[in-house]
Amino acid sequence: MAYELYYWPAIQGRGEFVRLALEEAGADYVDIARGREEDGQGLGAMTALLEDPSIVRPSYAPPFLRDGDVVIGQTAAILLYLGPRLGLAPSGEADRIWTHQIQLTIADVVAEAHDTHHPIAVSLPYEEQKPEAARRAGDFRANRIPEYLAWFEHVLTRNGGTHLVGSAVTYADLSLFQLIDGLLYAFPKATDAALAENPSVAALHAAIRGLPRIAAYLASPRRIPFNEQGIFRRYPELDL
Amino acid sequence: MAYELYYWPAIQGRGEFVRLALEEAGADYVDIARGREEDGQGLGAMTALLEDPSIVRPSYAPPFLRDGDVVIGQTAAILLYLGPRLGLAPSGEADRIWTHQIQLTIADVVAEAHDTHHPIAVSLPYEEQKPEAARRAGDFRANRIPEYLAWFEHVLTRNGGTHLVGSAVTYADLSLFQLIDGLLYAFPKATDAALAENPSVAALHAAIRGLPRIAAYLASPRRIPFNEQGIFRRYPELDL
Repeated sequence: MAYELYYWPAIQGRGEFVRLALEEAGADYVDIARGREEDGQGLGAMTALLEDPSIVRPSYAPPFLRDGDVVIGQTAAILLYLGPRLGLAPSGEADRIWTHQIQLTIADVVAEAHDTHHPIAVSLPYEEQKPEAARRAGDFRANRIPEYLAWFEHVLTRNGGTHLVGSAVTYADLSLFQLIDGLLYAFPKATDAALAENPSVAALHAAIRGLPRIAAYLASPRRIPFNEQGIFRRYPELDL
Repeated sequence: MAYELYYWPAIQGRGEFVRLALEEAGADYVDIARGREEDGQGLGAMTALLEDPSIVRPSYAPPFLRDGDVVIGQTAAILLYLGPRLGLAPSGEADRIWTHQIQLTIADVVAEAHDTHHPIAVSLPYEEQKPEAARRAGDFRANRIPEYLAWFEHVLTRNGGTHLVGSAVTYADLSLFQLIDGLLYAFPKATDAALAENPSVAALHAAIRGLPRIAAYLASPRRIPFNEQGIFRRYPELDL
């Protein structure tokens, strides 16, 4: 049975980390909220699952994944579950926990990237928190992007330079690609500068982009373009 | 061999979620950074492990746990690893992932609670981001605490009211206790109001506090008092 992914239909957002794993594995999946209402899909099918009070194990927010009777929320938990099933996680508990630890650190950067344009409240539009966003983005560019990328560089080089874990592609490699892709969209100047200091991270980003299935996905209409409703937003005033 | 916990020695912080699990299980562990330098412990032993360039799998930040040859960072990943070993996780993959999903949602609230006093930059003191902190804390009190506590209430009541998962204490129950304890310290007015709306969450907080091992731990010098260097800080101007 096909995996069912539930996520906002018009943004990459956190759902994109799951989409990339499913695409690289060639998995059979349905992106439910992007489907047609007449097929029982669409946004309504997602919000119904989020809001139905009879759901015993509701997710706090999208994305969530349905695999038969199992429903899993939280991006990193979804990838923890999917990794072994899709051939995108190492075998062995210690290696799997390490892969997951890297994913959780990527999730931390994603949350910080989001908060550069929403430093005060998710319930307010960017336009109502612009001065605070300018301050937070300044620190993110000056300190956080360099610190995090240096850590990923260290992890890569300590593992031979081409993969974060082991000698094959894991979901962590795909997620680091997506993180860098998003940072390049939102903060092109700051990210280019940081990548120049961290060549293995830059090389991984290029290598994942060139994987046949990922390249085909990125060129397809399934890949939603970056936009200013997602996590990574290009506001030139935040990348001075 | 004893587990080795590495975390900042003067705060509860994220390390406290690990300490509570170890304490409830009666596990043999050493809180390394709180030990004596002459025993090879203390803060220096922690920073050495963080900064040693020969470490193949470095953690980005504390807390991290050493269990023999395995070193694990990221609070939620540590608990994912420890849960089954300490008898604080259900059996079965789906139940374990659900427990972990709850933990990751708790981690999201913890990060948001931290950012109420550091909405701009972790590298700056609170005193240099007070206006922004006031705005962010206002939204956290008005929207985020109620939304998150309502979700935990739903999860609890759908599971019978006394535990988040199954019919025994898991690390997620301990972590929800700690989250509520921290919120009560930092935002007593807002949290009291939210707990009145979510009685199962309030009852779980009281029940965990009364567990014999947890009660003994909380009364011991091993429990570091809340303070204004940790994640949960009492700044009265942020709880108006």
